[in-house]
Amino acid sequence: MRRNIVTVPIHKALGADSISAAQDLLAVEEPLQIRVNGRDLSITMRTPGHDRELAAGFMFTEGILKIPSDVIAIESGENSVTLTLADGVDPGTARNFYTTSSCGVCGKASIDSLHASGCTMLREARVSREVIHGLPEKLRAAQSVFEHTGGLHGAALFDTGGNLEIVREDVGRHNAVDKLIGAEFLGGRLPLDRRILMLSGRASFELVQKAVMAGIPIVAAVGAPSSLAVQTALRFGLTLLGFVRNGRFNIYCGLSSFE
Amino acid sequence: MRRNIVTVPIHKALGADSISAAQDLLAVEEPLQIRVNGRDLSITMRTPGHDRELAAGFMFTEGILKIPSDVIAIESGENSVTLTLADGVDPGTARNFYTTSSCGVCGKASIDSLHASGCTMLREARVSREVIHGLPEKLRAAQSVFEHTGGLHGAALFDTGGNLEIVREDVGRHNAVDKLIGAEFLGGRLPLDRRILMLSGRASFELVQKAVMAGIPIVAAVGAPSSLAVQTALRFGLTLLGFVRNGRFNIYCGLSSFE
Repeated sequence: MRRNIVTVPIHKALGADSISAAQDLLAVEEPLQIRVNGRDLSITMRTPGHDRELAAGFMFTEGILKIPSDVIAIESGENSVTLTLADGVDPGTARNFYTTSSCGVCGKASIDSLHASGCTMLREARVSREVIHGLPEKLRAAQSVFEHTGGLHGAALFDTGGNLEIVREDVGRHNAVDKLIGAEFLGGRLPLDRRILMLSGRASFELVQKAVMAGIPIVAAVGAPSSLAVQTALRFGLTLLGFVRNGRFNIYCGLSSFE
Repeated sequence: MRRNIVTVPIHKALGADSISAAQDLLAVEEPLQIRVNGRDLSITMRTPGHDRELAAGFMFTEGILKIPSDVIAIESGENSVTLTLADGVDPGTARNFYTTSSCGVCGKASIDSLHASGCTMLREARVSREVIHGLPEKLRAAQSVFEHTGGLHGAALFDTGGNLEIVREDVGRHNAVDKLIGAEFLGGRLPLDRRILMLSGRASFELVQKAVMAGIPIVAAVGAPSSLAVQTALRFGLTLLGFVRNGRFNIYCGLSSFE
């Protein structure tokens, strides 16, 4: 089985204490290509392991597979699974499928495609640790629905002084970020340099990808980042903060400095 | 603006006390169709509100839109947004897009498509409240990675006696469920009646949809369900439990009974 956690060097910030080196474990996130009868059908960001079951479960819950004998063979590669279906089983078409989920990779090679889209290194920003420590409470205060239902992800944009500029909520974290960036895009305010994107949950590749596209130099998440989120942040000099809560945060990478 | 929370009648179970009627607020989850230059391009499950910004942000972060004048018009309908792009702006193709995210709706009308797939009412199950109260701890104990990284969603299948049958983890909650159902499908063990699917996070439409396809009568989530998750559960008699933690849980709907 492929490993599904990795150890990475980080820095920990705790209150006003000096920032100290440490190690952290990350959940691995990598793309999986599902091929059916020789055609690329779907790509999803997943944690490696049980890839054949993932592909079979996806095809079953989409209504393509009905019984186990609908599948003649399932072969698992590095980051791909190839299914061969029995005669007469309709493999569906790409239009019937969600091609990614919580991912944004959209059928393109993930990090490389960002570079190809014209993304370059982000500008660094300077921010005080005190500002970062204050973000979770400001996000909670700004979220209108989350506190009532516990069911909505929040995304908020702050300047480096910790002033809230815009907040959006959604059942999908990618949607909350799209709503936020879309508003700034339509308002002609991109790139969003010297800004901090605060997220109420975890930081996946998709969310970091969106921040890179919008030129946001710092992403701060209440939850954990994935391995691919950190790799993407590294590639573009984005400063990625995780576990931002209760007067602490982890610095996974980035060019920005914390005074 | 469309409303983004709804009030629903529920029942609350607290320890061994009698189950009492109550009300709860749910985050609204509905599909949004994005149309570009007259063609359906993408569908995503989202919380209504800021739909135009969502569509613009999605198109920008996908690299299709570069500057605000790339868009001539954005019109918002009931559950759709239609964009008209400036001459010379390549709208991309459906293959470049994730058509849904954390959703499973896959370009088909959501609940109706489940019915069309042959899904009928689920069989009810009987389970003791004590079993339900014990599930979160059993899921945590079975998850190998989550406790270390805080970054993985878990999905576990239990029988109605509370015995663990299989557990899977992933950065994507839909993947964890696909891995679990895929393993049972390949093993020829479907439908999964008299089983409980326990989820470490929230319950979205997509996850309930997958449970219905696999014939699982009870879904128990540590977090909140969405509005569409409850509507889907209602339609197929699935028993949906939320906020299953600390000796409590909410019953949103369902045929199964708790002794």
